[in-house]
Amino acid sequence: MGHIDNINMDELDFVEMEMEEIQGLAEQLLAGRKYSMLRQMLGNLNAADVALLFDEIDNKEIPLLYRLLPKEEAAECFSYMSRDMQKNLINTLTDRELRAVMDDIFLDDTVDMIEEMPANVVARILRNTDEETRKMINQILNYPKDSAGSLMTIEYVNIKKEMTVGEAISRIRKTAVDKETIYTCYVTENRKLIGMVSVKDLLMAEDSMQIEDVMETNVIYVDTHEDKEEVAKILNKYDFLAIPVVDREERLVGIITFDDAMDVMQEENTEDITKMAAMLPTEDSYFNTSAFSHAKSRISWLLVLMLSATVSGSIITHYQETFKLYPLLVSFIPMLTGTGGNCGSQSSTLMIRGLALDEIKFRDTFKVVFKEFRIALLVSVVLAVVNGMRIYFQYGDLQIAIVIGLALVVIVVLSKFIGCTMPLLAEHIGLDPALMAAPLISTIVDICSILIYFKIATVLLQISVP
Amino acid sequence: MGHIDNINMDELDFVEMEMEEIQGLAEQLLAGRKYSMLRQMLGNLNAADVALLFDEIDNKEIPLLYRLLPKEEAAECFSYMSRDMQKNLINTLTDRELRAVMDDIFLDDTVDMIEEMPANVVARILRNTDEETRKMINQILNYPKDSAGSLMTIEYVNIKKEMTVGEAISRIRKTAVDKETIYTCYVTENRKLIGMVSVKDLLMAEDSMQIEDVMETNVIYVDTHEDKEEVAKILNKYDFLAIPVVDREERLVGIITFDDAMDVMQEENTEDITKMAAMLPTEDSYFNTSAFSHAKSRISWLLVLMLSATVSGSIITHYQETFKLYPLLVSFIPMLTGTGGNCGSQSSTLMIRGLALDEIKFRDTFKVVFKEFRIALLVSVVLAVVNGMRIYFQYGDLQIAIVIGLALVVIVVLSKFIGCTMPLLAEHIGLDPALMAAPLISTIVDICSILIYFKIATVLLQISVP
Repeated sequence: MGHIDNINMDELDFVEMEMEEIQGLAEQLLAGRKYSMLRQMLGNLNAADVALLFDEIDNKEIPLLYRLLPKEEAAECFSYMSRDMQKNLINTLTDRELRAVMDDIFLDDTVDMIEEMPANVVARILRNTDEETRKMINQILNYPKDSAGSLMTIEYVNIKKEMTVGEAISRIRKTAVDKETIYTCYVTENRKLIGMVSVKDLLMAEDSMQIEDVMETNVIYVDTHEDKEEVAKILNKYDFLAIPVVDREERLVGIITFDDAMDVMQEENTEDITKMAAMLPTEDSYFNTSAFSHAKSRISWLLVLMLSATVSGSIITHYQETFKLYPLLVSFIPMLTGTGGNCGSQSSTLMIRGLALDEIKFRDTFKVVFKEFRIALLVSVVLAVVNGMRIYFQYGDLQIAIVIGLALVVIVVLSKFIGCTMPLLAEHIGLDPALMAAPLISTIVDICSILIYFKIATVLLQISVP
Repeated sequence: MGHIDNINMDELDFVEMEMEEIQGLAEQLLAGRKYSMLRQMLGNLNAADVALLFDEIDNKEIPLLYRLLPKEEAAECFSYMSRDMQKNLINTLTDRELRAVMDDIFLDDTVDMIEEMPANVVARILRNTDEETRKMINQILNYPKDSAGSLMTIEYVNIKKEMTVGEAISRIRKTAVDKETIYTCYVTENRKLIGMVSVKDLLMAEDSMQIEDVMETNVIYVDTHEDKEEVAKILNKYDFLAIPVVDREERLVGIITFDDAMDVMQEENTEDITKMAAMLPTEDSYFNTSAFSHAKSRISWLLVLMLSATVSGSIITHYQETFKLYPLLVSFIPMLTGTGGNCGSQSSTLMIRGLALDEIKFRDTFKVVFKEFRIALLVSVVLAVVNGMRIYFQYGDLQIAIVIGLALVVIVVLSKFIGCTMPLLAEHIGLDPALMAAPLISTIVDICSILIYFKIATVLLQISVP
């Protein structure tokens, strides 16, 4: 890039630059005290990228860098920062600076922040928030953690049905700066939600028309107590920019915007995937969670599954005499339990995902079982033939080949049955289907597989078990 | 609900009604030939819900129901329908009706549809599309399947930097009806993208100001060949309503809106989860995929994993004499391999998800390994102590208790090492990390676990292996 004195800020194309280059340049400018160039650069970057920049630079430069941000960008950038960075920054800001941030960031971001900050930081935030906002924060904090109420923002555009389109537009123009989205306007009467109109519809209508005549009256809304995952699904289903949230008396209390819904969707996916690998979900990202917390979130299921696996052990002990006679039989155990586990988790994974996306319901159980049965037959016959032939050619023992082939068919059919029914049953009795994923299914299928295998072996090989 | 003659459409609150109730009412109205009531009802429902209604009603009523739809809702509803329903409907529509649909639906939806329809339906669609649209469809179809180009729409608002804010607003008002989103307007010069301005900014500015002075010039855009998963991530990162797509000459060719990004995110998550359960992703939903296709998508990995598991078998055969002396040793195999597999997949799952969300990168490998090592120590000591004590009290055999305890510690540490490094390596060499999930990790860990176990057992129990 050459020496910093030779850089012309207007000629740099930040969109084309890698994050690492931007970071390097920022560090050079800081070191060279080129503050006005740095300010110009920060103004040209997107607030989300500036927030990432803060993570990379030296801690003691952070307050300086923050003070260089153009005022209108500071608050936006602040809401994109990690919690740790926000906490550090709050501790270095003066009361006056903190108040400026709190005035500018949207209420839902403030609430999210407060929920995760230590008490002394929360106290400082609340001290620097005006009375009215503080009241609304407390109200939102009262909603259950995963509810629509806790996710919503109250910064929406509110109009009246008696207004004309022109009046509505000029209301939007006046209040837009403080609103999280202006593109959907809500029509209320005595605080009740009676209609909705998009800015697109307003712009396409004549200025003289009445809101009452252009508004959509069949408004899809959610209740403050609705689960946030459900809210994200609804926004995704209807491709809404925002959805209104009403209280028990059907009064409009807030809105939830699509960007928050996207975040909820990703969080829920992460949570499901974590649970499916026998872990308790952690609040924070991988690196922000301590080794001890990671261990804690992993140990409980490992203990349960380890102790359950001793059941397989007892069955094996029961058939000791069998494998003393035929030691070769033991060597097929990992292959049989492995295949059973994989087949079972294929089915359970599809059920868990189908249930999460509302593509599969409990009432489809019979249809699912029938389908999985046909799939299991197709799959198991191929596996049995391939493995039976391998064993026959490797050991020249037709009897063992038949035992393994037959065991494979029965194990695959049963694994798929267990794999597809357990998540559906879990959903039906109100448990999280994601718990019925690979680890638990494998442990259960292991027990069944070993039982089936030794039963078939002892019968076909005519071994008497005490 | 009482007899249909007594129903007053204006009094029904469709938002509060369950889908089943709406469907029942639609069927009653169809049966009673109450077409004007039905039309009124359809007009009050959201297009996404009307599309669901089509899935539920008798096939032969479908053309009738479609013709009852208010004209402006018909095309929107059509784009929400399943592919099968669209195909059926196209076959019953007259050319004139089909042309009306094609005129009204957005180009990106047309392209998605064409990509998945049989050739004869595609031919009919293209015959009923105007020349210019046909040319653009062909152009979009030329982009690679998972690229930004194939996902974009060309129906965006285009303005010039010389316009005033007032002129831009009146241009939006005139052209809004045909645009997928009007809320972000793009400024071009010689077809090149030079800026962007949101409707919010336009409304907040004075009518007399020039676009040049209010537009944002550091526009974040994507290339037509960018992977659509990447595009979805960018939209999510910046909370954008839409992102512009440019060609190799930096000319603006289209935009991608947040609703399509949401769908991509969900599809990619489903694909990852499917791959993580050792299946090839299928194009369609669970029920829309045949048993044969399901079997096909599951069999390849099952075969690979089954045959790999025979390695574990050979190791066991090698130690035949050991477990002839100590048959009890065999009974611990499922518990040890199970625990190893679970520990390994916990680590690999967190890596795969961390990589997908860009929270973990290959350069973090050392940090990750060190963290997983500490976690593995914490977890394995707990497991070893619990299981060692159980074995000691159950069998009164301290030697076996020590063998199992020690084997558990080594197996857990090694599993976590394999589990965390394999996805990172896969990413580094350009493979999909999702392939390194539970099934493959378990198979590899099984082999290592059995090897470690018998090694420790033969050494501590002083058994000589031939």
